[in-house]
Amino acid sequence: LAASSGQQKMSENGVVPRAKVLTIDTMNPTVKNVEYAVRGPIVARAVELERELSEGMKKPFAEVIKANIGDAHAMGQQPITFFRQVLALCSYPELLNDSTFPEDAKSRAYRILQSCGGNSMGSYSASQGIDSVRQDVAHYIERRDGGVPCDPDNIYLTTGASDGIMTMLKLLVCGEGATRTGVMISIPQYPLYSAALAELGAVQINYYLNEEKCWSLDISELQRALDEARHYCSPRALCIINPGNPTGQVQSRQCIEDVIRFAAKERLFLMADEVYQDNVYAEGCQFHSFKKVLFEMGPEYSNTVELASFHSTSKCYMGECGFRGGYMEVMNMDDEVKAQLTKLLSVRLCPPVPGQALMDLVVNPPQPGEPSYDNFIKERTATLSALAEKAKLTEQVLNTVQGISCNPVQGAMYSFPHITIPEKAIKEAMEQGQQPDMFYCMKMLEETGICLVPGSGFGQKEGTYHFRMTILPPIDKLQILLIKVKEFHQKFTQQYS
Amino acid sequence: LAASSGQQKMSENGVVPRAKVLTIDTMNPTVKNVEYAVRGPIVARAVELERELSEGMKKPFAEVIKANIGDAHAMGQQPITFFRQVLALCSYPELLNDSTFPEDAKSRAYRILQSCGGNSMGSYSASQGIDSVRQDVAHYIERRDGGVPCDPDNIYLTTGASDGIMTMLKLLVCGEGATRTGVMISIPQYPLYSAALAELGAVQINYYLNEEKCWSLDISELQRALDEARHYCSPRALCIINPGNPTGQVQSRQCIEDVIRFAAKERLFLMADEVYQDNVYAEGCQFHSFKKVLFEMGPEYSNTVELASFHSTSKCYMGECGFRGGYMEVMNMDDEVKAQLTKLLSVRLCPPVPGQALMDLVVNPPQPGEPSYDNFIKERTATLSALAEKAKLTEQVLNTVQGISCNPVQGAMYSFPHITIPEKAIKEAMEQGQQPDMFYCMKMLEETGICLVPGSGFGQKEGTYHFRMTILPPIDKLQILLIKVKEFHQKFTQQYS
Repeated sequence: LAASSGQQKMSENGVVPRAKVLTIDTMNPTVKNVEYAVRGPIVARAVELERELSEGMKKPFAEVIKANIGDAHAMGQQPITFFRQVLALCSYPELLNDSTFPEDAKSRAYRILQSCGGNSMGSYSASQGIDSVRQDVAHYIERRDGGVPCDPDNIYLTTGASDGIMTMLKLLVCGEGATRTGVMISIPQYPLYSAALAELGAVQINYYLNEEKCWSLDISELQRALDEARHYCSPRALCIINPGNPTGQVQSRQCIEDVIRFAAKERLFLMADEVYQDNVYAEGCQFHSFKKVLFEMGPEYSNTVELASFHSTSKCYMGECGFRGGYMEVMNMDDEVKAQLTKLLSVRLCPPVPGQALMDLVVNPPQPGEPSYDNFIKERTATLSALAEKAKLTEQVLNTVQGISCNPVQGAMYSFPHITIPEKAIKEAMEQGQQPDMFYCMKMLEETGICLVPGSGFGQKEGTYHFRMTILPPIDKLQILLIKVKEFHQKFTQQYS
Repeated sequence: LAASSGQQKMSENGVVPRAKVLTIDTMNPTVKNVEYAVRGPIVARAVELERELSEGMKKPFAEVIKANIGDAHAMGQQPITFFRQVLALCSYPELLNDSTFPEDAKSRAYRILQSCGGNSMGSYSASQGIDSVRQDVAHYIERRDGGVPCDPDNIYLTTGASDGIMTMLKLLVCGEGATRTGVMISIPQYPLYSAALAELGAVQINYYLNEEKCWSLDISELQRALDEARHYCSPRALCIINPGNPTGQVQSRQCIEDVIRFAAKERLFLMADEVYQDNVYAEGCQFHSFKKVLFEMGPEYSNTVELASFHSTSKCYMGECGFRGGYMEVMNMDDEVKAQLTKLLSVRLCPPVPGQALMDLVVNPPQPGEPSYDNFIKERTATLSALAEKAKLTEQVLNTVQGISCNPVQGAMYSFPHITIPEKAIKEAMEQGQQPDMFYCMKMLEETGICLVPGSGFGQKEGTYHFRMTILPPIDKLQILLIKVKEFHQKFTQQYS
């Protein structure tokens, strides 16, 4: 059975090894189908280059800049002081006696610890998450959505948003062949979606965002994608990322309403990835939650359309990726399915408690009048203003480059510019068995130390090429980076013309 | 398609809801097959009872005691001071200037932060885990195993051990029908295994531990189970839990050697769940790692047998379940499969960084001469001695009860006594559609407030009944609990005789 890849090589000590049980030929084929470009070969090469630099090897650059991933703290963003004070207090409650900690941080830590078994973050929580945290999440959602009610029973704390999205997709997948579950995802997409669908053996249904109209979502395109897909699978879910990743657009209220109407008409379960809900920069743009719009559309929709919305501690102004905090809210989910969901989550016991604590702070930050309020607002504003400035700068500089065309970065943390790659470069890439934009990004990495992710890792209209670049580096570094990208693009274009 | 469970009930506001997309009939069938008794209906009822008590409802007991889960801190066990100091320092590095923290805690925190992007636990780590932590894990394993070499490249940090086990099983599963992957697990087992196999649609192959011989593992039983299974599936892996959960036995060196020989002969991938490696209490018992024994068996085995071993921050003397820290070490894993494993892990980005930091402290605790050493040893010894005492007490008291028979709790954190349930009770349980030991445990919960897990949740020889009880409550509480169990059993037996 497993013989095909078990080459019988003689090992150093003269023993002929047995053929391995687990080989590339005998492993789970769905895992093999998984791809995840954000941490793919280009990042592996970037890590290698960093090591080579540190070993004193000469390179045409002094440092590798990883603009491939939305990892704010790694790019120098500072954590929110209040959050970290509370986490320290929760980790080592002796500090509750330390007079240098502000009282609101102490009372928040005390409240979190009271909700933990044995008053310790070292206890398992309920699988759905700590009760009081879920209540705070519910209150946050009610405030955010102007009073639309939220039931803490519909809140599930997760290990980052990725875990919630993966879990929801897992529930949705069934059937075989032409009845296999199909899930609609935007192209370009965040590759967690394609990876999860590959692992689950579900059918990925692509709908294309309209780059000409600032990556907007056209209902006619949804309809086209769905109608075609019905021939070969059973479409059951529609995923939206808003604000967009990698494309940075912010959906209008009208668009969201249209999407909800479409989901209702076509009987699709809606999954709204709203992890960038605080990351909106462009004038005239505003974040509208699917939950709120759904509610405003009246009972015909708000009582029927099934929706799961995802949030995270990793993005927005906090950028606390390492803690793996997140939540999902489900609406109109069948009660029996909810019970199954809770059961499924219980096998993993619970999401990390420090991440739950952090999520609690995000949804329940210092309030006016509390000692930490002013500093919290100052820190949050500084981070969000800097991001807004960097979003604008990125768009501006990239659009000065002939052969690069960049939509406004309305929100999220990325630009996803269109790049023109000369025919000669495309040919050379193909000869090397590489996607042209991978070829382009690899060359950029080797020559400039800048690590970007090729558009092919997110999906793009055939024959078009892009890269994703985070706007996270500090502004002075970002400026240098953008100039380097510009110079590289000009040189590359010249070289292959 | 989804109509079967979409009952067209009129909602309050007069709108006829659409049939739901996602119902119990249309959801992923493998998820429905998942069962996880440790957090099953009995725990749900315990939580309900706690709420009822807090609302002032009268019960025949004053408090619910959850002896269902290995959740040490929830049972009052104190965290190790040094670990929590370092975690506080990592969370809020301002504290590095605080003179009340010991220098070794500071230098440890500094080292961890140096390994984090932007010196922040809020950054993503490498998907395989922080490099320096994996190096520390490798050194720990080398010390533990008397110098057997360990390559940090073989270490993968995980979100608790559960995540590692789930991921390894995911890699192993393939085929359909009679070639579907079969995985051998002990009965009784920790239900993560059966749950994971159900979710993955793999075939569960049961081998029975020998209760008469202190839950020992007989190779002849492994052979019987395997030979039978070869008729209907493709057995590829063998899971061992040592020290045992729920059964508390500690495997002899000879037994481990025999298991390895068996795995080699039958071409099985070995999975060794060694999360209780520090929890060995019985005289004459000692923990032997599969890795060490494998190495000592010489190159014929050490260069060929594929092994994954799992460890966690949740058990042993630290009991830090909430942080979801863990690692796995793989040996003789095919290089291409390792690359696939890393890719698969990258989709989830990284394990929680605070859990990684904690894992680092567990494998690299204070050393002789460092300021925190004495206190660390004192705390660790106190916890492990108390556990040893409670293990003995549990066995002794339970064995004084007629109709309860309990093997020595040689290790881990649980007793799994055999209980005699009268015929009349069995009949009544069956009439209620309940497993007899579930019926027994539910009655015990309602009458005494003690929450145990019925043996049927772990698997047991047909016609035998058990429960799993943790030995974690503080000794005075455990004493009361054991007396209550005794009295309940006597009353129950009388009632149904």
